[in-house]
Amino acid sequence: MIKTLTGKIDFAESLRGQSATFILSMSNTKTANIEGITQAGIPGMLHLTPTLDAEFLCTGEVRSLENIATTPKGVPTPALITRAVHLLHPFGTVELLNLGIEVTPKVDYFTCHDMEISGSDSIDTGANIDALTVFQKGLAFGQSYTPKNDYVILGESVPSGTTTALATALALGYACEDKFSSSFKNAPHTIKKEVVESALKNIDPADDLFTILSKVSDNMLIFNAGFILGANDKNTPIVLAGGTQMACVLLVVNRILEAMEGEIDATKISLCTTKWVAEDPHSDIQGLLEMLSFPVNSYYTNFDFSLTAHPALKLYDEGEAKEGVGAGGALMYGVLNGLTKEEITRKVESFLG
Amino acid sequence: MIKTLTGKIDFAESLRGQSATFILSMSNTKTANIEGITQAGIPGMLHLTPTLDAEFLCTGEVRSLENIATTPKGVPTPALITRAVHLLHPFGTVELLNLGIEVTPKVDYFTCHDMEISGSDSIDTGANIDALTVFQKGLAFGQSYTPKNDYVILGESVPSGTTTALATALALGYACEDKFSSSFKNAPHTIKKEVVESALKNIDPADDLFTILSKVSDNMLIFNAGFILGANDKNTPIVLAGGTQMACVLLVVNRILEAMEGEIDATKISLCTTKWVAEDPHSDIQGLLEMLSFPVNSYYTNFDFSLTAHPALKLYDEGEAKEGVGAGGALMYGVLNGLTKEEITRKVESFLG
Repeated sequence: MIKTLTGKIDFAESLRGQSATFILSMSNTKTANIEGITQAGIPGMLHLTPTLDAEFLCTGEVRSLENIATTPKGVPTPALITRAVHLLHPFGTVELLNLGIEVTPKVDYFTCHDMEISGSDSIDTGANIDALTVFQKGLAFGQSYTPKNDYVILGESVPSGTTTALATALALGYACEDKFSSSFKNAPHTIKKEVVESALKNIDPADDLFTILSKVSDNMLIFNAGFILGANDKNTPIVLAGGTQMACVLLVVNRILEAMEGEIDATKISLCTTKWVAEDPHSDIQGLLEMLSFPVNSYYTNFDFSLTAHPALKLYDEGEAKEGVGAGGALMYGVLNGLTKEEITRKVESFLG
Repeated sequence: MIKTLTGKIDFAESLRGQSATFILSMSNTKTANIEGITQAGIPGMLHLTPTLDAEFLCTGEVRSLENIATTPKGVPTPALITRAVHLLHPFGTVELLNLGIEVTPKVDYFTCHDMEISGSDSIDTGANIDALTVFQKGLAFGQSYTPKNDYVILGESVPSGTTTALATALALGYACEDKFSSSFKNAPHTIKKEVVESALKNIDPADDLFTILSKVSDNMLIFNAGFILGANDKNTPIVLAGGTQMACVLLVVNRILEAMEGEIDATKISLCTTKWVAEDPHSDIQGLLEMLSFPVNSYYTNFDFSLTAHPALKLYDEGEAKEGVGAGGALMYGVLNGLTKEEITRKVESFLG
């Protein structure tokens, strides 16, 4: 079942039965190398997470490492959910967006848009992103991109992306300290807080918007802000598939519009996340979306792992993992095409043996 | 589940969720009139098999004869499998290719490309095909053909087609005596062998490629070799849906390329067959494909009739029927669109009452 976070159910319902292009945007930030900052991936191999997620989503195989990315506690990647939906009711097209990853996914035949962007540095010392160029690349991509299907579901895989998203939103002046999600149940607020505080110290009061972004953000946030604005010019319907990181993309869009004194008709832009994010007591995605000066429709599906006994999947329901690889948007796509919680659960289980 | 025979899974995965045009290529060779050479059809009515297969595939009805083509032992045509997939997750388009059949299928509204080719004679006395013209018709068709969908699944229905395929491959110099499949569990090697030997005796050492084909081949093999080469010029993705006969089409392509000193980028060409062919201990489709001087991706699905108790369908699992009417490619299309073995089995059962 699809629940409305902000706006009305009508946009989601209008997508029922429509075909979708799923785009996975992938990026690395060295912020992920800070010990203990994320559990999205394999220790020492965190930078591989987007690569492995993309390989598994496209081919069902993990090629750049032997096993599917699992966290120290054994939480499997949400790519399992997205892949399960793709097997049960395929996306019309799956494409990849390389926004600066260290290792290119080993997949043939799938379109991988290489945006020729370098991975960014750790935000505690400065991300060192050419933010204006990255934004302009996103804008140009959105303006030229014609999906092969009715609409776009835009997911992301960026290890430590909630940290860079939090730093970005704070640096842009949003009062959102407690609104950001984490892949941890007990979010490592100390480490995360320290990193964000270090990042914010690098901001000079005279810095303009893109200078701020160049210091504290990540490529995914900046590029996709451009992508959304560009695609909106073309009236391409987009579902941002993700949690607080995707909300942050919209917060960036919001500041850019303010800086440029621009306006947006956001009726074709929406966000869809998981129940684990939407009902997370430790974050507030709805609050983030309500900070926007334009209204967006946002949703979540009530999918959880209550129908499984698999201990690794149960960790999701315990709050140890919440979102990523477009899981929320994929689940909405599945529900809009008739898939049941039971079917999706069984398919996800089948990957774990 | 889709298994890889040669190449990598990526090409198949890239077709997940894509729409397909299913083309049934139909041909008659008088080789089928030799008593005991095939069990694909009704004794005395073997020439009707492609006609009936086409009618059933398109309309669910058999119009040019009272009952669905069954073999003496009561093995139902694999058209049941292709039709079942088409009912559960329809092909975008179904089209027919008339490559010389005696009776035109009685179907309205479906495009039937009539290539104005006559049925061929029995290979034991000489097939009497204008092979160059048939090839050129295939080439021109492939060059001009634009599918209405993302890719093409090309199936065939040619009674006694494995015999003409074996003769063709041997005449073209491939050491493949034991690599060809048969619709029989206990393949009638004596009759088949005699016919193939008689056919090969008609070859003169001075014969060029097309003269050889004109004596020992069938229209489906020759036309589709041209079709594939023509379609490849247009970059149309094609799944050859079939077993050793479709492998033979590629062996013909291979010899034509050698003769013309041509090259092919076969990245958009693949083959998909059934488990019954792929795991047949009496033939070796993988071995045939490995004889090509260009690499192709080939697959099979692990569909079998283990979930049914219907004795006529059980005969497939016992090796009495293996492939035809694009069943292998149809099954892959089904799996790529979320169909389960259970669903397909029940649908096939529903045709038998």
